[in-house]
Amino acid sequence: MDLITIEYIGKQPKLVNPILIEGLPGIGNVGKLAVEHLIDNINAKKFAELYCKDFPPQVFINPDGTIELVKNEFYYWKAEKKNQRDIVLLTGDYQGLSSQGQYELVDNILAILKKLGVKELYTLGGYGLGHEINRPQVLCATTDKELVSKMKKLGAVFKKNEPGGGIVGASGLLLGLGKLRGFKGACFMGETPGYLVDPKSAKAVLKVLMNLTKIDIDVSALEKKAKEIEQIAQQLRDFETSTKEKPEDLKYIG
Amino acid sequence: MDLITIEYIGKQPKLVNPILIEGLPGIGNVGKLAVEHLIDNINAKKFAELYCKDFPPQVFINPDGTIELVKNEFYYWKAEKKNQRDIVLLTGDYQGLSSQGQYELVDNILAILKKLGVKELYTLGGYGLGHEINRPQVLCATTDKELVSKMKKLGAVFKKNEPGGGIVGASGLLLGLGKLRGFKGACFMGETPGYLVDPKSAKAVLKVLMNLTKIDIDVSALEKKAKEIEQIAQQLRDFETSTKEKPEDLKYIG
Amino acid sequence: MDLITIEYIGKQPKLVNPILIEGLPGIGNVGKLAVEHLIDNINAKKFAELYCKDFPPQVFINPDGTIELVKNEFYYWKAEKKNQRDIVLLTGDYQGLSSQGQYELVDNILAILKKLGVKELYTLGGYGLGHEINRPQVLCATTDKELVSKMKKLGAVFKKNEPGGGIVGASGLLLGLGKLRGFKGACFMGETPGYLVDPKSAKAVLKVLMNLTKIDIDVSALEKKAKEIEQIAQQLRDFETSTKEKPEDLKYIG
Amino acid sequence: MDLITIEYIGKQPKLVNPILIEGLPGIGNVGKLAVEHLIDNINAKKFAELYCKDFPPQVFINPDGTIELVKNEFYYWKAEKKNQRDIVLLTGDYQGLSSQGQYELVDNILAILKKLGVKELYTLGGYGLGHEINRPQVLCATTDKELVSKMKKLGAVFKKNEPGGGIVGASGLLLGLGKLRGFKGACFMGETPGYLVDPKSAKAVLKVLMNLTKIDIDVSALEKKAKEIEQIAQQLRDFETSTKEKPEDLKYIG
Repeated sequence: MDLITIEYIGKQPKLVNPILIEGLPGIGNVGKLAVEHLIDNINAKKFAELYCKDFPPQVFINPDGTIELVKNEFYYWKAEKKNQRDIVLLTGDYQGLSSQGQYELVDNILAILKKLGVKELYTLGGYGLGHEINRPQVLCATTDKELVSKMKKLGAVFKKNEPGGGIVGASGLLLGLGKLRGFKGACFMGETPGYLVDPKSAKAVLKVLMNLTKIDIDVSALEKKAKEIEQIAQQLRDFETSTKEKPEDLKYIG
Repeated sequence: MDLITIEYIGKQPKLVNPILIEGLPGIGNVGKLAVEHLIDNINAKKFAELYCKDFPPQVFINPDGTIELVKNEFYYWKAEKKNQRDIVLLTGDYQGLSSQGQYELVDNILAILKKLGVKELYTLGGYGLGHEINRPQVLCATTDKELVSKMKKLGAVFKKNEPGGGIVGASGLLLGLGKLRGFKGACFMGETPGYLVDPKSAKAVLKVLMNLTKIDIDVSALEKKAKEIEQIAQQLRDFETSTKEKPEDLKYIG
Repeated sequence: MDLITIEYIGKQPKLVNPILIEGLPGIGNVGKLAVEHLIDNINAKKFAELYCKDFPPQVFINPDGTIELVKNEFYYWKAEKKNQRDIVLLTGDYQGLSSQGQYELVDNILAILKKLGVKELYTLGGYGLGHEINRPQVLCATTDKELVSKMKKLGAVFKKNEPGGGIVGASGLLLGLGKLRGFKGACFMGETPGYLVDPKSAKAVLKVLMNLTKIDIDVSALEKKAKEIEQIAQQLRDFETSTKEKPEDLKYIG
Repeated sequence: MDLITIEYIGKQPKLVNPILIEGLPGIGNVGKLAVEHLIDNINAKKFAELYCKDFPPQVFINPDGTIELVKNEFYYWKAEKKNQRDIVLLTGDYQGLSSQGQYELVDNILAILKKLGVKELYTLGGYGLGHEINRPQVLCATTDKELVSKMKKLGAVFKKNEPGGGIVGASGLLLGLGKLRGFKGACFMGETPGYLVDPKSAKAVLKVLMNLTKIDIDVSALEKKAKEIEQIAQQLRDFETSTKEKPEDLKYIG
């Protein structure tokens, strides 16, 4: 069994000089949230499913009672205006579980993208701060020096030595291995506390993506989700405060 | 050394349009208990043993002092009535240890099943609730929409978003990878607290299997085991209650 | 790089119907202690070193300041009397680290043994009881039923359902995979508390080996080591008792 | 995708009977600090980058905002005086993550070195003592007996049974596997507490390297770093002392 199985849905799309936008599960699920929102909003079409034996041995259950093997998914969207470009979108349930699996998987994905004519990669993720943040900025890192000033103009921020640990996972590896294979691109990282899924951070990332893609994206659904998460976060803070004030009560728990 | 070694006992059976019933170790050991009970009850014949280097490096010791390398086992049973079908049964000591190993192993098993003419897969497992349950229901998920109503008629239950985490391990992967390879089927998951082996849940699963296979199965042995386990569970609850009441006694333990 | 590298020292020995005696690191280091003692005592000759990439990436340092890559070692001994048989001995620094590595390694070792004409395997190990034991017995498990009574005559003991967890690691796998490859043999497991290296248990195993091999082995060195370990064990028990009696003293540690 | 990708920068250097000096991340980062300092000091030229799928799936971010896939790096330096030799230097971000990966990676590196004409390997590391040390010695281990006295003359120290656990990782494996492939060499291990990066220990190692290479190395930058680390260590000790004296204060932390 090969590392990946790629199942095309209908014909492969014919795209003109497309860019990739990738968002897989990660810190605050920022990247995945942003790409899924974008897919819904621009009505992108799924054209391939990717199964990988480095994903967990797991199926999810659809609302209709049928199962789905865990997977990654490729979508595409064709430019509607002259200042826009065709887009390939990549999201999914999981990243590879092992280090070697991640490398192999990303290498396979790059080969698929090359066949589709993709030369530019934009990867999305979260930058975990470990503390609350009011107005998340979108940090950036690029494959090439000349992209730095371009990305700044789109609203992305470059902070020296941040993230200090670099970028771990598919968003980093797509750029890192991609650079070796001749791709160019950038990673957009929305600042996030990192404790919960973070639609507010995803919204900040989408704002930069709007500037990049020249697409108008309605972010009201993300804003609604952000409010729900904020309520959950407040409840967790309240619970923490109440248990801190009366630690002796804890003796009766468990 | 190949991932799996398959040792046939005598000739491979000639089966007419057989179905697979699989039950390997898992939550509450529900699936394994159910299939082993079925094998005993219908006097199914073992026709192959499967060894796999993704199992633990371990032998078990038989009552007569001889060793057995850990393995999976294939049995078959030939239909005795017109409304019945031939059955291949799969059980064993372990599932694969690693994610990649699980994918490879299940892929190998699907190839073996295809050669035997199997097109329908019924996999058994437990659905861990984390709390006691009086009358375990049997949850279900299927490869195809049209199987949902069929399985409901057999007594299986579909609950939206349950199990929320999907199905992890061989029972899920057989259906997930199987679907990609052209198989159809369903997974029956007996509700179980998940703390101990659960013959009561296995019995519930067997009731659904009786409806599926049109075989009368004597479940009295499982009922007896269920009573024994219930006694052990009660003893554990009593012990917990007593230690909670007198926590100071714990100081003298260990 | 292949999984194993085998380096022969001089020519491969020509042996007549040899048996294997294996003892690698494990519970109480019983097997390794026993085989190393036997090698010293009968002056067996090393004829091969086995390196394996599933061992840790580690070198040991010899007393003379030179390094040695961690390895397994093969020795041989040629029968001196008519009632004796040629012997291949296997010991070493490590077993394979991963499950798949263990299977591959043992499979490779079996191929080497087959070339040497070995058909019978005797593997040594410890059976961890988790409590002190005065007179360790030597439990046994065999590949074949007819070997059970033979091993009983040598002083080995068969207890129904013991060890309950079977045999994990090379000692079990050599017999388990070996059986599939046409080898016969037995595993001798010296009972041991399992907390410390256990020369007393190794001595008990050697007593059975003496009966098997018809070789007189001087076990006085093991007896001396056993007394040293007993002193260490007593000191640990004393320390435990003293710290239990005065738990408040612990406040001043660390 | 192969385990390693090697990217040459310009032409491969033509070297005359060069030696290798290796220092990768490890205990106290002693080896990496020493080699990086040496590279800066002698102005060695980078000629190759090595990427490996057994490294973490990670990119680092340069000060200019561009990303770098984690890697190892090869440098060279050509002898300037008659009593000096050409040098290949190896350093990098990571060692291999898995045992099998470490073996494969080191085996690949040895093949690269062989092509460059390297026959002698000098590997650097730290020897973690677990306690403070005023004047770190440089322990040594060699592939061959005749190298022991040579290394002693350079100022390296041989202590019987130290390090007791041998040498784990690339520094040990380069010598261990290298010995099997016909290389000779030694490992220099600077004594270090092992808690923090240790420029003082790296300086001690460089002193021995100066004797080996007949190169004058300015260690003032390392001495400055060592003072900074000593201040941090003192602050940590002060903090520990203060918290030990007033343990009740800890209740208000976190």
